[in-house]
Amino acid sequence: MIANTLHRNITFLYNFLSKHYKANPFTRHMNTSDNLLSFNRNGKLLFYLDRTYVREIFDDPTPKDLIQVSGWVKSIRSACKGTLLFIDFTDSTTILPLQIAVSNTIPNFGQVKNLTMGSSVSFIGKLSTEPTLELKLESEDSGHKFHIYNKIDNSDNYPIAKQALSVDYIRSFPHLRARTRFGSSIIHARSELINLTHKYFKNKKFTHITTPIITTMDAEGAGCQFKITPGNFFGTPTYLAVSGQLALEVLTCSVGDTYTLGPTFRAENSNTTRHLSEFWMLEVECSFAQLNDIITIAEDYIKYVAKQMMQTEWIKYLDEYNGDVIQRLSELINNEVIVVSFDECMEIIKNNYNGQTVGSINISRDDERVLIEHFGNKLIAITHFPSVNRPFYMKRTNSGKSTFSFDIIAPEVGEIVGGSERETNYQRLVKQMEEQKMNVECYKKYLDMRIFGSIPHGGFGIGIERLLMFLTGVKNIRDVIPFPRMISHAEF
Amino acid sequence: MIANTLHRNITFLYNFLSKHYKANPFTRHMNTSDNLLSFNRNGKLLFYLDRTYVREIFDDPTPKDLIQVSGWVKSIRSACKGTLLFIDFTDSTTILPLQIAVSNTIPNFGQVKNLTMGSSVSFIGKLSTEPTLELKLESEDSGHKFHIYNKIDNSDNYPIAKQALSVDYIRSFPHLRARTRFGSSIIHARSELINLTHKYFKNKKFTHITTPIITTMDAEGAGCQFKITPGNFFGTPTYLAVSGQLALEVLTCSVGDTYTLGPTFRAENSNTTRHLSEFWMLEVECSFAQLNDIITIAEDYIKYVAKQMMQTEWIKYLDEYNGDVIQRLSELINNEVIVVSFDECMEIIKNNYNGQTVGSINISRDDERVLIEHFGNKLIAITHFPSVNRPFYMKRTNSGKSTFSFDIIAPEVGEIVGGSERETNYQRLVKQMEEQKMNVECYKKYLDMRIFGSIPHGGFGIGIERLLMFLTGVKNIRDVIPFPRMISHAEF
Repeated sequence: MIANTLHRNITFLYNFLSKHYKANPFTRHMNTSDNLLSFNRNGKLLFYLDRTYVREIFDDPTPKDLIQVSGWVKSIRSACKGTLLFIDFTDSTTILPLQIAVSNTIPNFGQVKNLTMGSSVSFIGKLSTEPTLELKLESEDSGHKFHIYNKIDNSDNYPIAKQALSVDYIRSFPHLRARTRFGSSIIHARSELINLTHKYFKNKKFTHITTPIITTMDAEGAGCQFKITPGNFFGTPTYLAVSGQLALEVLTCSVGDTYTLGPTFRAENSNTTRHLSEFWMLEVECSFAQLNDIITIAEDYIKYVAKQMMQTEWIKYLDEYNGDVIQRLSELINNEVIVVSFDECMEIIKNNYNGQTVGSINISRDDERVLIEHFGNKLIAITHFPSVNRPFYMKRTNSGKSTFSFDIIAPEVGEIVGGSERETNYQRLVKQMEEQKMNVECYKKYLDMRIFGSIPHGGFGIGIERLLMFLTGVKNIRDVIPFPRMISHAEF
Repeated sequence: MIANTLHRNITFLYNFLSKHYKANPFTRHMNTSDNLLSFNRNGKLLFYLDRTYVREIFDDPTPKDLIQVSGWVKSIRSACKGTLLFIDFTDSTTILPLQIAVSNTIPNFGQVKNLTMGSSVSFIGKLSTEPTLELKLESEDSGHKFHIYNKIDNSDNYPIAKQALSVDYIRSFPHLRARTRFGSSIIHARSELINLTHKYFKNKKFTHITTPIITTMDAEGAGCQFKITPGNFFGTPTYLAVSGQLALEVLTCSVGDTYTLGPTFRAENSNTTRHLSEFWMLEVECSFAQLNDIITIAEDYIKYVAKQMMQTEWIKYLDEYNGDVIQRLSELINNEVIVVSFDECMEIIKNNYNGQTVGSINISRDDERVLIEHFGNKLIAITHFPSVNRPFYMKRTNSGKSTFSFDIIAPEVGEIVGGSERETNYQRLVKQMEEQKMNVECYKKYLDMRIFGSIPHGGFGIGIERLLMFLTGVKNIRDVIPFPRMISHAEF
């Protein structure tokens, strides 16, 4: 009789699994007997369970008979004279922890009682909304159970305490900081930003180009490249790319509007809260475009991601954490970018400041603050920078003294965008390269594009980390990248 | 009177531009008098024109009074005793060229007549569907005109001839190959694949992680890393990442399901049609997952991108170019992936082949062909590879002799996916690292995840170029990446 029941159960199980497996390829087959199947005491199969994400529960918080969640314990407290345990539980798919209520009617209740923060576990129980939304583990007969994957034995060593931790403290645990709400919000926000970026440019019919990291060129001429060894591997010295722009330009002159999104590298000795040796950059190159077009696209992109990002739970949390993030982003979306020339900026600075930078060829950090204050916390596009000390590829105005270039500066973060029209005339470009003592021969194919159907084009670059700082209110660039690299520091 | 007309026109123009500028931030302001504005002979403003993409015209081929297109001349021929010119024109937003018909009623007709292939130009004319879809330039009064940006003066030097070019030939012009249909199809297909990949994993609630390129670790232990100089910059020797897996695993143990998509590097002396020194890799890490789950996700992802890609015009073109691409992808979508163990494969090879590889620990290229033939051109997931010579992180079966690992091999291309469950037990992992003579101290934080709430997890890696070869039918890996890097070759 028992054998018959078992046989029926197994047949049923087989059919059920076969069907289910095809219906949902994302079923997680955790085939330990502990949690794949639930039989009641009479050997009746109760359920074969998929894993449910905590995010799905908050998205659709209606009661359910039996669900399984898998993740980590955030905190644990005892109630009703020790007969009930409340566990704050997360699988990091959402900011909010799910409350798990485990009753002492569950076998091995003592094991749950001894769980420590950070331990990994699966719970199978009933999703209830009475008195509040929680997963209740009450009755073994209903299939309620748990499985502990890993209990942290020496919990004093676990660095992520329950109380609020300073950003500086958690920065020293790059492998564990995403276990905090702050750390996981950043990781999710970064993922969201990269996704939105691809979505935006796909909608605008831009083509994504993967520009090379190992390169023979120096787009910025700043001499701060990392070199690659063995040096003879490629038959020519190679470096880590400081920019993908030159490769991008070449393809823009074939396939039209393009962008690239990937890592870039600077061997600068800048140990600040705004610099990294390895950072991600969005670079956009627009065909048949002039300065105004390029500024417009940069503005539209920033407003798009700001608008989308501020609606995510991650930014809502970071708004509470860092203050006024959403307020600042809302204002940005409703305001035009201020477009102002470099020369006008210098006038403003002279009239508002001690004047020591007047006549300079750059906008300093102090200058940025003066301008931001002058224009009332808006984004500012500063155009027509002087030609002196600008990269060879920038198109110059008729007088030759200034360039069709722009930077966009943002409150607090400073420069987040830099761009320009590119020189499209072969002779003028070669002249500018020679002025900067570049080896013109190395750039032959880049120059070819000025002979074979040259087009007006230009673009801009945005450091993803700077943009993230702006979008999240985070003050230190090392907090918006999973594994930061800077001078004397490369962990992992 | 004329002054009044002009004033009215300018006021109208100002209002028009202001309104238009806000309505569509993607208006391209090509502010040369040649093509921004069209006045008729009486000074009446006819139109302020946006640029229209050729793709938009084919998507909505209804007649229009006046449109502007910008791009390159593909070919040019004279008709009606030289009074009419037919130009094949492309802006690379679609495979098909747009036909432009220029009549000699247009001033400077002679300039158009002398245009050469590859020259860049804007045309403003009337979009007509009679007799076929074409842009007609007939009457100056209606605002029909053109602007030549760059005529190729010495057109004999332009390497992209009108006739069909061999893939080998165009490969030697990395900067111009995207001007060919084949080259631009590949660039667009690559862009599409990367976009689809982000879309897929976003929909499945995976978090995108940017794993570091500059790394202190060696995920594969294969000793084929590029080193970075200056070597003391980071205070420790650093290398170009061969994989982002270890960093990805760490975050999977915090934020759940993750993936990374970016460049990886191998300093291997492999000068073949299937190897690159710099290539893009999709790496996926699944939390609370076992071998079957991981294979299922890899299968589902490949089928998703295959299904989406085969509907694009780029793959439809490459199907004609390379033959049977769509047929092969259709079969793939309708068939299950064959799941077969390494040992079973060895039996099949012994029975179908000369047997010389039996007893081996690897599947050779020849073995792959035998298996593909045996199973009838399907995708094959080979599981449970021997433990010998496998990376330290692979989880082993109870006997210790084989691993919870798999490769997916595809017809013609061979291996496109490799993955495994990861060892999650601290002691076993350390033992496996010591066996492989690794410096355990360097991996302390990676190991920490096995103490602080270890979870069952695993994942897979897919070389984007191999996958693209499979999806496009392209035979040489150098043709599916814009700027290939291999031993003795790094151009750009």
